[in-house]
Amino acid sequence: MAHPLRGVYAPVITPFDRALAPDAERFTAHCHWLVSHGAGLAIFGTNSEAASLSVDERLHLTDHLLEAGVPADRLMPGTGACALSDAVTLTQHAVAQGAPGVLVLPPFFYKGVPEEGVFTYYSEIIERVGSDKLGIYLYHIPQMTQVPITMSLIERLLKRYPHTIMGAKDSSGDWSNSRAMIEAFAPSGFAVFPASESLLTASLPLGGAGCISATVNVNPAGIKALFDCWNTPEGAVLQDQADQIRKIFQAMPMIAAMKRTAAEHSGHADWARVRPPLCALDEEAASALRSALGAVGFRMEGYPR
Amino acid sequence: MAHPLRGVYAPVITPFDRALAPDAERFTAHCHWLVSHGAGLAIFGTNSEAASLSVDERLHLTDHLLEAGVPADRLMPGTGACALSDAVTLTQHAVAQGAPGVLVLPPFFYKGVPEEGVFTYYSEIIERVGSDKLGIYLYHIPQMTQVPITMSLIERLLKRYPHTIMGAKDSSGDWSNSRAMIEAFAPSGFAVFPASESLLTASLPLGGAGCISATVNVNPAGIKALFDCWNTPEGAVLQDQADQIRKIFQAMPMIAAMKRTAAEHSGHADWARVRPPLCALDEEAASALRSALGAVGFRMEGYPR
Repeated sequence: MAHPLRGVYAPVITPFDRALAPDAERFTAHCHWLVSHGAGLAIFGTNSEAASLSVDERLHLTDHLLEAGVPADRLMPGTGACALSDAVTLTQHAVAQGAPGVLVLPPFFYKGVPEEGVFTYYSEIIERVGSDKLGIYLYHIPQMTQVPITMSLIERLLKRYPHTIMGAKDSSGDWSNSRAMIEAFAPSGFAVFPASESLLTASLPLGGAGCISATVNVNPAGIKALFDCWNTPEGAVLQDQADQIRKIFQAMPMIAAMKRTAAEHSGHADWARVRPPLCALDEEAASALRSALGAVGFRMEGYPR
Repeated sequence: MAHPLRGVYAPVITPFDRALAPDAERFTAHCHWLVSHGAGLAIFGTNSEAASLSVDERLHLTDHLLEAGVPADRLMPGTGACALSDAVTLTQHAVAQGAPGVLVLPPFFYKGVPEEGVFTYYSEIIERVGSDKLGIYLYHIPQMTQVPITMSLIERLLKRYPHTIMGAKDSSGDWSNSRAMIEAFAPSGFAVFPASESLLTASLPLGGAGCISATVNVNPAGIKALFDCWNTPEGAVLQDQADQIRKIFQAMPMIAAMKRTAAEHSGHADWARVRPPLCALDEEAASALRSALGAVGFRMEGYPR
């Protein structure tokens, strides 16, 4: 049986080698580091450049992680795709490999589609995977998909599949939307993950489940401490510290900025590479980023070199 | 060497069986019928629900067509994908199978990406395929992708790859944009295909290359006659007739409406099926469609049953 997850998840950044192929070794090392600092692994999210990876690349990276001893129970792979057939392949594999949750984008090529069609997409995935171990987290990121996960869609899916629909990631950046999701559905166990640690202090007391946030890739320990201690005397300071780091990355193209930071802290310049259509940071931006992070004493403790 | 193509192309609709799997036999029969009425085959376009197909499904359907004797020189497969690796796989296959052109979407998940990143995507495809037989048609459909094929991108790609960048499909629906593309680039041989036969009489005298239009799926002979005879005394009547049919389909969800029409004219109800997130026409809409088509004497001459 699936159960709702809680905690602090990184949409894990994906390293590429000189041929732009995924670097499974470096990916695994990054995942081990994240887990050791208390983070869960939302591999193949937006910040993972998942849309820029083929299905086979995603399957191979997942297998490599598990063979290298990354614990399956820390995984929440992104398994959504425009093609139902791809989403089913990825979701089946994640469940078979022991992932306790999957984060599923709606199909995002066609716009203005009827809610009925989005419902059918999720319904077909659930019926075809056909496993009581499947726990689905709906991925609301309308600025990329233009296909929203509406309150009425959640309600309808929850009613039909109460033991499979476990929660949602809200990447809208609209706190009133996250709050509405939490207030409406968290009381019955639905796990709502806003996409930023900056909302932890606001969302956790209402019943939020944590966060799935880009910057967990670079600040897992700080964000995990905030998640654990938001309601202690240290809470406000931890929130401030996390917000400071978040703001620095948010002022830049975030994926490129995080990868450049991983490159500098690992000593491997290859980490800075992104797949098109994204572009790596230029040297001027990289220098500004380095200065801003230096000014707040940013560190990546024990980061694999 | 690639050469610019001309003519009337159908973004071929894709039939699905009861399990929502592509029906290769019916797909092939539809393609044979289109070719016999003078249409080229832009398989795996937007109207083909290409985004809803996996890479393997697209490869298999292409192979099946060719094994069944559909001429490779009538193919312009859609080979764009969010993942560079997928776009390369699909493009390599199309070139190896003898397709004289491929229609390539920009990667469409990330929004607001730099033009440099889109340039790099096309550049990587061209370099990796590495064939002088590759002819690329850039696919501008900003209402779905939100990632435009700008005039400056075309200019830059043409300058770097003059023997590979053969043309563009303009699905913006903005005639001033199609005209600007034609005026700027057609004189040097660049083939511009607006996405509607309703623009044939306007675009052909300026140097347009034809059209890649949804309704070629249901009205290939009428649109081919218009393409051939727009500048004869019959031209105005042919344009009117084509426009009448176009308008009827355009007033509905077009993919579902064309598939329902194929279902009724073939006697195979399965043709009406779409993959989620699209929805099939309901009976009320189907009835209105049938009446409207009947009123203009619509027929699909010799359509395979």
